[in-house]
Amino acid sequence: MDSAEIMRRCGVLAGFTEEPGRLIRNYLSPPMHDVHRTVRGWMEAAGMETRVDAAGNLRATFGEGPRLMIGSHLDTVPSGGRHDGVLGVLIGIALVARRPPCAVEVVGFSGAEGVGEGVPLIGSRAVIGEPVTEVPVLDAIRNFGLDPGRLPEAVLDPEVKGYLEFHIEQGPMLDCLGVPLAAVETVAGFSRWCLRFDGKTNHAGSTPMNRRRDALAGAAEWIGLVEHVALSAAGLVATADAIEVRPTAGMVIPGTVRVGMDVRHGLDEVRERAREVLLNGADDIAGRRGLAVEAEWNVDELSATLHSEVVEQALAAAGYPVRRLVSGGGEDAMILARRVPSSMFFLRGEEVVLAEDVDAALAAGEAFLRSWRR
Amino acid sequence: MDSAEIMRRCGVLAGFTEEPGRLIRNYLSPPMHDVHRTVRGWMEAAGMETRVDAAGNLRATFGEGPRLMIGSHLDTVPSGGRHDGVLGVLIGIALVARRPPCAVEVVGFSGAEGVGEGVPLIGSRAVIGEPVTEVPVLDAIRNFGLDPGRLPEAVLDPEVKGYLEFHIEQGPMLDCLGVPLAAVETVAGFSRWCLRFDGKTNHAGSTPMNRRRDALAGAAEWIGLVEHVALSAAGLVATADAIEVRPTAGMVIPGTVRVGMDVRHGLDEVRERAREVLLNGADDIAGRRGLAVEAEWNVDELSATLHSEVVEQALAAAGYPVRRLVSGGGEDAMILARRVPSSMFFLRGEEVVLAEDVDAALAAGEAFLRSWRR
Repeated sequence: MDSAEIMRRCGVLAGFTEEPGRLIRNYLSPPMHDVHRTVRGWMEAAGMETRVDAAGNLRATFGEGPRLMIGSHLDTVPSGGRHDGVLGVLIGIALVARRPPCAVEVVGFSGAEGVGEGVPLIGSRAVIGEPVTEVPVLDAIRNFGLDPGRLPEAVLDPEVKGYLEFHIEQGPMLDCLGVPLAAVETVAGFSRWCLRFDGKTNHAGSTPMNRRRDALAGAAEWIGLVEHVALSAAGLVATADAIEVRPTAGMVIPGTVRVGMDVRHGLDEVRERAREVLLNGADDIAGRRGLAVEAEWNVDELSATLHSEVVEQALAAAGYPVRRLVSGGGEDAMILARRVPSSMFFLRGEEVVLAEDVDAALAAGEAFLRSWRR
Repeated sequence: MDSAEIMRRCGVLAGFTEEPGRLIRNYLSPPMHDVHRTVRGWMEAAGMETRVDAAGNLRATFGEGPRLMIGSHLDTVPSGGRHDGVLGVLIGIALVARRPPCAVEVVGFSGAEGVGEGVPLIGSRAVIGEPVTEVPVLDAIRNFGLDPGRLPEAVLDPEVKGYLEFHIEQGPMLDCLGVPLAAVETVAGFSRWCLRFDGKTNHAGSTPMNRRRDALAGAAEWIGLVEHVALSAAGLVATADAIEVRPTAGMVIPGTVRVGMDVRHGLDEVRERAREVLLNGADDIAGRRGLAVEAEWNVDELSATLHSEVVEQALAAAGYPVRRLVSGGGEDAMILARRVPSSMFFLRGEEVVLAEDVDAALAAGEAFLRSWRR
């Protein structure tokens, strides 16, 4: 199977969406049935045995004995595009179709984004035996026709000796470097939270500036601090990724503002220090302005160190430039890395994915499999 | 009729709302039928002849010959509270019940807030012969069972020789001064607009800080400027009163942000200069950050000078302290002032309205009517 067929299959899967005209598949949403049926057919055509586990991961095995797990996620978000996740699963199937020298398990993970504001990477957490048991997740599992009681059967087989993931970069670095592939050395940890500023609703025309407790003015000052702090350490990123004002009537000083925050760095201590500076800064700003401030929810994930040498060797063996990057996206590899040696290839593709880059990934993947020691 | 009865009536009208548990009556929304029926009954009991004009204003006349129009609005917003608007109409009815020495027309205006983001003060604009003819307004008129073709009949009678409004302050100044009433000398003009910042949606984890075009970071910097500019001139107020981010997915750098802006001052040149500084500042911020910025809509209203001497004389005659204030809320008086000498009393009442302050308004209103020269 070549890159053209992989690209065609990405197009087929892009047709399975919750909203016509806009690609979105949440955790175990109805179009995931179509995705499973279709990808399962491709897996079986490649000679694999398939099942869907109780977390909603589509799993397929080829061969016997110690094996390499190759996976990525099958659900996606509107900003992800048609290659997000699925490309890594399809490359795994294509490598099996080329008859690898070792046993392989290909996994299409579910729940990369989590349900609502819940913990992300639901599928891979179940595979390492740390399933998410939040009620909305268990409800989604049941609604999809699966049985949460069987989650223990999703845990990886002792024969799985390593994990490999292919994923588009979703960032500009490979485009800047002008190379098709990179080895991921670290998946950055992340801290995500929602901060609520509470002030006082007043008439916007009748309340003098010096008598206001304007929640939006406070939130805006904090967003300025976020940018300032993020620029203070190389590789640190911090993003106000959501904001919501109450009440929504015009001509009214905002009484309540919620801001979504996302902070990432490859080194956990850098991220945690930034998180502390930002939370203290919010307290300072709120105190000065007579606002109350509170974190409504938060999710934190430690960074993961990947086995990048084997990926670098495969890149060199296949004749491609060798580059190492930190992944800012929290991928399933960061979860699998807690149990088995895990590796990851980034493919260039923030704006477009080139067929020749997929060919490069296939060639480097074959080199990886040839040298992989179970 | 005394203040207790007026307070009771405010409570009755507070029961007519679009949302149980939250007082809101938009322009010609269904509960306005209940308000009209109820207030009409009170007007007729006070000996007045009533009608509803084609703009949805409830109008009632008492006596013959040159007359004073007394009015305020009957629709309201959640931040307004149960005395917003209706208190002024009920004081007008109470003054008629006390048999004034001149003819009076009491008006319950409609459309104080406008429809959606449209022009506010719809009812009073129709009364001065400048009706709002936006499609959503005409639709609302028809849906309420009225005929937009009859809008010319809403125009004020040549016998109307002046306008008087009673309104709660919706600001803290009378509470600070510790007095029940003030004369409004000016209704501040306002500039309202919605600014759209367009940047680029990118993955929040994978995009380095120096490669971002973050629409929310730009909007937040601008909101900081707004506050700074507002503090630069006495009496100037500027408020970011709404903000909306697209896309709404987390972990994504915001691509589009809309900010609602509200700027007010008693002197039009101060407000217009602030508006220009803010729009130029938005251009500067956007240019520096690689964002596009555009005003999606805007509404501007000139300030209105009211006849405050007659109000001050009435306050003095009734034995109350005499204070003059600028109104930051755009009230119907600012529209009527374009056609007839118009005056306005502010009642203390940002947080609570006191029955004794309503008694003060009735006494001062009687003094005003005694000295009013048609």
